[in-house]
Amino acid sequence: MNNYVLAVDGGGSKTALAVFNRNGEVIASEQGAGSSLSYDLQLSCERMMQQVASIMNTTAIPAHHTQCIIGVAGAGNPYNRAALLQRLETFAFADTRVTSDAVTAALGANLGAPVACVALGTGSVGARLDSHGQLQLVGGWGFTLGDGGSGARLGAMAVQALMQAVDRQQPLHGLIATIAKEVGETRAEISAWVRQATAKEFATLSERVWPHANHCPIATEILARHKSAVLQLIADTRQDTELPVMLLGGLANKSKQLLSDSEQRIIMPARGNALDGAWVLATQNIQVE
Amino acid sequence: MNNYVLAVDGGGSKTALAVFNRNGEVIASEQGAGSSLSYDLQLSCERMMQQVASIMNTTAIPAHHTQCIIGVAGAGNPYNRAALLQRLETFAFADTRVTSDAVTAALGANLGAPVACVALGTGSVGARLDSHGQLQLVGGWGFTLGDGGSGARLGAMAVQALMQAVDRQQPLHGLIATIAKEVGETRAEISAWVRQATAKEFATLSERVWPHANHCPIATEILARHKSAVLQLIADTRQDTELPVMLLGGLANKSKQLLSDSEQRIIMPARGNALDGAWVLATQNIQVE
Repeated sequence: MNNYVLAVDGGGSKTALAVFNRNGEVIASEQGAGSSLSYDLQLSCERMMQQVASIMNTTAIPAHHTQCIIGVAGAGNPYNRAALLQRLETFAFADTRVTSDAVTAALGANLGAPVACVALGTGSVGARLDSHGQLQLVGGWGFTLGDGGSGARLGAMAVQALMQAVDRQQPLHGLIATIAKEVGETRAEISAWVRQATAKEFATLSERVWPHANHCPIATEILARHKSAVLQLIADTRQDTELPVMLLGGLANKSKQLLSDSEQRIIMPARGNALDGAWVLATQNIQVE
Repeated sequence: MNNYVLAVDGGGSKTALAVFNRNGEVIASEQGAGSSLSYDLQLSCERMMQQVASIMNTTAIPAHHTQCIIGVAGAGNPYNRAALLQRLETFAFADTRVTSDAVTAALGANLGAPVACVALGTGSVGARLDSHGQLQLVGGWGFTLGDGGSGARLGAMAVQALMQAVDRQQPLHGLIATIAKEVGETRAEISAWVRQATAKEFATLSERVWPHANHCPIATEILARHKSAVLQLIADTRQDTELPVMLLGGLANKSKQLLSDSEQRIIMPARGNALDGAWVLATQNIQVE
C-alpha cells in the first residue's frame, strides 16, 4: 500500500477532507463548501479541485505516495464520475477512486465489517456489504420514482394529502392546515409551488409532519407509510441475511423512534463516518457493484 | 350574446379551431400544430396567434361580434393564461376567455349537462359539472405528485417494478424484461434513462404493460393499481353525486375494460368534444372554480 490516503466526503452542503497515514491515523483535516456532483457539475469539480489542492499544499505530502479516495454525492452517474476523475489527473496521485458517498458512508458505518446500512436524508439509499467484501447499493433511485423513506418523499406525501383535501373540498385541519400555509390552499397556488419545488424543499417541508404525529390522523397515517417505506428499504438492503442494520442521515433517529422494540433491536449505532469508509476502501479488498 | 363564437382546443400535439354562428352551427374549422402552454410558452402563444389570425382572415367575420373561447393545455397556470390573454388583446374580440382544455373537454363531453368527466391520457384530470352550472376540477396535479390513473403513472409503475427487481437481484421476466430492454438493466443505465425521461416518455412506455396483462403477474398487479387509481379519480370527481361518468383520452377505452360490469354501467359515451365545450362556455352560465 501507499504511505498516505486522502479521504474526501463530498455532500450537498459541505465537503470534509482528511489525510490518513499508513497506520490509519488522521494527520490533517479540512472542511469546505458542498461539492455534490448532482447540481452544478463544473462548479462542484472546481470546488473539489481547490479543496484537494489546499489540503495537499498544507500537508506537503507527496501525491505519488498518496491514494485519493473520494465519496461524493452524484457519483452514481457515470458521466459525473468521469468528469471529476479527469480533472483529478492533474494531481498525479498514486491511485484515484471516485465513488458514491453512499458507498463510503456504508464502509465507514461498520468500519469495513459486513453491514446493511440505510441512509435517510433528503433522499434515501441502502448499501449491503457482505462477508465476501461485496458492496451492493439498494434503492436510492432519486425523487421522481424512488427514495421511499426519505425526507423528500415524506414532504411529498404531506403535499399529496393537501391536494386530496382540496380535491374533496374538505376543511383544512391539523397538518394539512400547516402545509397549506406554506404551499397555498388553491389549485393555482399549490400547482405553482410544486412546479418550482426541489427535493430539498419537499424534505424541509417534512419537518412539519413530526409535531403533528400524536394528534392529527393524517400525520399519523403519513408517518405510518414512512415507517413501512423505511422497513421496506431495510428489508431490501438486508435481503435474506442476518446483517446488523445501521441507520444514517438526518432522519435516522426520528425514523427509528417509529419502529417497534423488536424492529429497533437489529439497529446498531454507526462506528465510523464516510472518511473512515474512504480509508477502508483504500486499504481493504472491497468490490463495489 | 354575440353573433359568432371562435372555439379553440389547444393540446400538446395539435390545435383545433372552429367558428360557430349564433345557431351553434360550425361555419369554418381549421387544424394546426400543438399549442400546449406547458412546454415553450412563447412558441405556443405565437402558434396560437397565427392560427387564430388564419381562421379570422379566412372567415372574414368581425372580431367585435365574436367571442373567443380557448381551452388549452397548461392554462391552469395563471402566468401562462395571463401571457396568452395579453397577446390576444390585439384581435379586439367582443370577449376573450382562456381556460384549461380540461374545462372545455368536460363541458363538451355532455354538451353542458351535468357530468363527472375523467380524462386519462399522458396525464389525468377529473371535472365535475353540477346541476347549478358549477364546474370543479379534481386531480390533474401533474406527474411529480399526482396524475394517478394516467399513462405516465402507469409507465412509472413499470419502471419502479424494474428498479425493485434490480434491487432484489431477481431475474428479469415478462413485462420487466420488456421494460429493461428499453430502459436498461443496470443501476447506471436505469438512472440515466429516468433522469432524461419526460412524462410523455413514461406514457409511451406504458403501452408495453397491456400486452403482458394476462400472463405476467407483475403486469397484472400494476394494472390492478392503475384500475384502483382510475376508480379513485372517478369517485373523487363524482363525489357524493349520482352524475353520469364520461371517460376521455387515449387510455379511456383500455382502462374501462379493466372495470367490473357494475363499474362500467355508470360510464356513458361522450356526446361532444372540447370545441363543443367552448361553445357551451360561451353561451351558458357556467362558473369555473
